Amino acid sequence: MTSTTRPQNDGGLSRRAVLAGATTAMFVPATAAALGTSAVAVSPSTASRPSAAVPAGTTHRITMYVEELGGGQVGYGLEPGAATIPGPVLEMYEGDTMEITLVNTTDRDVSIHPHGVLYDTASDGSPFNASYNGPGETRTYTWRTTGERSMGRWSRPGTAGYWHYHDHAMGTPHGTGGLAAGLYGALIVRRRGDVLPDRQFTCVFNGMLINNQSAPHTPMFEARLGETVEFICIGHGDMFHTFHLHAHRWANNRTGYLEGPRDPSQIIDTRDLNPGDSFGFQVVAGEDVGPGAWMYHCHVQFHSDGGMAGIFLVRNADGSMPDGAQESIDWFHEHEGGH
Amino acid sequence: MTSTTRPQNDGGLSRRAVLAGATTAMFVPATAAALGTSAVAVSPSTASRPSAAVPAGTTHRITMYVEELGGGQVGYGLEPGAATIPGPVLEMYEGDTMEITLVNTTDRDVSIHPHGVLYDTASDGSPFNASYNGPGETRTYTWRTTGERSMGRWSRPGTAGYWHYHDHAMGTPHGTGGLAAGLYGALIVRRRGDVLPDRQFTCVFNGMLINNQSAPHTPMFEARLGETVEFICIGHGDMFHTFHLHAHRWANNRTGYLEGPRDPSQIIDTRDLNPGDSFGFQVVAGEDVGPGAWMYHCHVQFHSDGGMAGIFLVRNADGSMPDGAQESIDWFHEHEGGH
Amino acid sequence: MTSTTRPQNDGGLSRRAVLAGATTAMFVPATAAALGTSAVAVSPSTASRPSAAVPAGTTHRITMYVEELGGGQVGYGLEPGAATIPGPVLEMYEGDTMEITLVNTTDRDVSIHPHGVLYDTASDGSPFNASYNGPGETRTYTWRTTGERSMGRWSRPGTAGYWHYHDHAMGTPHGTGGLAAGLYGALIVRRRGDVLPDRQFTCVFNGMLINNQSAPHTPMFEARLGETVEFICIGHGDMFHTFHLHAHRWANNRTGYLEGPRDPSQIIDTRDLNPGDSFGFQVVAGEDVGPGAWMYHCHVQFHSDGGMAGIFLVRNADGSMPDGAQESIDWFHEHEGGH
Ligand SMILES: [Cu+2]
Ligand SMILES: [Cu+2]
Ligand SMILES: [Cu+2]
Repeated sequence: MTSTTRPQNDGGLSRRAVLAGATTAMFVPATAAALGTSAVAVSPSTASRPSAAVPAGTTHRITMYVEELGGGQVGYGLEPGAATIPGPVLEMYEGDTMEITLVNTTDRDVSIHPHGVLYDTASDGSPFNASYNGPGETRTYTWRTTGERSMGRWSRPGTAGYWHYHDHAMGTPHGTGGLAAGLYGALIVRRRGDVLPDRQFTCVFNGMLINNQSAPHTPMFEARLGETVEFICIGHGDMFHTFHLHAHRWANNRTGYLEGPRDPSQIIDTRDLNPGDSFGFQVVAGEDVGPGAWMYHCHVQFHSDGGMAGIFLVRNADGSMPDGAQESIDWFHEHEGGH
Repeated sequence: MTSTTRPQNDGGLSRRAVLAGATTAMFVPATAAALGTSAVAVSPSTASRPSAAVPAGTTHRITMYVEELGGGQVGYGLEPGAATIPGPVLEMYEGDTMEITLVNTTDRDVSIHPHGVLYDTASDGSPFNASYNGPGETRTYTWRTTGERSMGRWSRPGTAGYWHYHDHAMGTPHGTGGLAAGLYGALIVRRRGDVLPDRQFTCVFNGMLINNQSAPHTPMFEARLGETVEFICIGHGDMFHTFHLHAHRWANNRTGYLEGPRDPSQIIDTRDLNPGDSFGFQVVAGEDVGPGAWMYHCHVQFHSDGGMAGIFLVRNADGSMPDGAQESIDWFHEHEGGH
Repeated sequence: MTSTTRPQNDGGLSRRAVLAGATTAMFVPATAAALGTSAVAVSPSTASRPSAAVPAGTTHRITMYVEELGGGQVGYGLEPGAATIPGPVLEMYEGDTMEITLVNTTDRDVSIHPHGVLYDTASDGSPFNASYNGPGETRTYTWRTTGERSMGRWSRPGTAGYWHYHDHAMGTPHGTGGLAAGLYGALIVRRRGDVLPDRQFTCVFNGMLINNQSAPHTPMFEARLGETVEFICIGHGDMFHTFHLHAHRWANNRTGYLEGPRDPSQIIDTRDLNPGDSFGFQVVAGEDVGPGAWMYHCHVQFHSDGGMAGIFLVRNADGSMPDGAQESIDWFHEHEGGH
């Protein structure tokens, strides 16, 4: 398993490897199948999909490390020296609890504030509630979840969703310094019965950057034809954005799938992705369109022209490179990103 | 009942008091229960929930006054000297009619333009349709509502929603001057059977202000643990925003509740809130997270850092202050709002 | 049938005429009924609604021409000399295929890139995939569609939607030059059983312009009282917008209609319309509110004040002008658009 000490563009795989290899009780529902190419980090065979084995109401205890990554970048990681931007994908089922022991290895205030889940004021992750780590401090935050509660005709929503976590203390009381530096990541709460993906990609539009990178250095997300891939899209910073994925589409609802033929959700391939917002969806890589190098990008013109674009590489089913894909990748490196 | 002559931050209660005390036929579905603290305006015991008593198709006749509030601020009120920013929450059931006699006490053009409801061109509230009050003029506007109309498999939507009303005449033909000055408010059209809240909060993101105030002077919304509270969120001005509420979440649909287990709506705690848009939702104050001082804020970083943040104070069930909440409030007054 | 050689504001009718008169296999589901007034282009009686006659899985073969329109404007058209801004509305049913032979009459790179539908990399319409027309070149693009695919409890979405197409090659690799010049249009994929409209209006918010025009020259969309009209709203450029229509409302879902009484969709009359996004809906012109001149506009204040406003003229059922409507139109020409 590879440990990284700086921001990475890894096709969404080595972060899954980090999760799978961490010696914690944390739950990793999805398989990170190995791609048969040397260009991509290979995930460990220990990655598994223990959904049937994990009892309802599990408490996941993890330790997260806030670490300087050089060049003003700061990341969350599940082991010392393993911080990445974005941080690791954290996953739970409705009913589970997660206890995060956050180790602050920096000399600045920092915190972890989640969206969507349940927490008391002591785990708010904000200076407003005196809930943050001072320089060098360790602090434990507890996140709980719940299913929906029936009220007869109506239900109060549970916590299932494609959420995110981020710093709420560094630089300003709203974590503006921490967000700019890279302190953010995806948080998924699943409902029992939700579809589990083969691969996961976290895509954060943060100012003019994607995962704190600009084209051509933005992440290249990779999958094989026919694999189920999950995008978790998160917005941060001061600018508005619209996330667009070529040749794939999803339902604008909780999961991206339709809940049967009467689901009225709009089908979309572009969605607003503004600061603090998040959404997720799954697609079958290359379904009905074939393998190839597909673009994802912000659809605000001066953003896409200015480097907010990346590649979703759908390999052939056997892992080999599709015809023309390498040419597209080469073109991308020559032409995108404000050359 | 307190009359106010300037913008107020009242925890969403005294506006309900205004509504309940007005000698009009207007319908006030929700109870405004008294909080047991002197820091909060106590709503009158005459507030009631007459849903069972009000027949379908009721016509509500009210008089609204447009008044200068000093400092360039202008508000709508239900009695002379009672104008507030935002204006009073106006509520109807689908099928009802509202006749608003608008009294313009200013020397400028003004109007009232509603979203979502039915009106003919004479009640459009725009100079485009010669539908506004000149200086000192009184004019009556009529708003109607309807339920959905079946077309077999499909239905044409009715008018139920968390809407809003605003000036469309002051300063420019689109009311830019009136909106900047504070001429806006919430308009709710309920469907029979909708859940009625214990408390209501109107939260308007208007330029860099919330209800025309900047932190730490933004409204502190208050409720007791376990009360059902309703947020009506409205956007105005020239900027884009994302409304975020800590530790509570809702469904991104008409009501914020789920309509049973197959409702596909995304569960959210952050939503775009751009000019002219509105949404509403109900949450149980402190449910699963406990009492305390919770933040709501725009999630655009320079907006939250610049004063677009406020407090949702969830008191203990007996009305007393939760542990640590006063410290959070004090912190807020010392640190938020561009200090 | 009128051929146009420059941008037009035609109430959404002459583009339908172009479609109906084109000697292609393209499918035009909706009737473009003639308005009984000389001020409006009359659509040909050959327009028909062949939904019952067109077999599932039809392949529509069309030729589109990219043409300079003067003043730096460029449009798509279905015949030589017929280019318009926006381009023609293209329609399919789920299961259909469209083959577009794109003729580039300009001396610049250009392409056609669709949203929502299925295409392989050769039809991506982007320089990234070497899929564009060089100066003077002709190239064929193939778009396919599909219905939803059941996965048991879940379904993978089909391609039904209010989509759009646009250039992705002129000026920059993201088509920034082509979009600014007017190379965009509506693309509708219907599900069998969807309601077909009497009229269609394409409304593109592109920078500070609507269909590349500023008030008072923005399109005046026209219908008779009681006709079913379809708006297809598309965003482009660098700015965020909110589309607002006076006195009409729709469901925020795939069609704008409710799918029965348990459809949880929010009812709206204002919606974010940001670059790359699109949505559509149908309303019955003047239903419950009567005929008249109704405004549509961006609700961002400096956008509406700066010319992002237009007229939805609902004529009397017999086609005559409603009382007061001409006065409103005259007012609009005197006061809107930054005078
Ligand atoms: Cu962007
Ligand atoms: Cu904001
Ligand atoms: Cu706009």
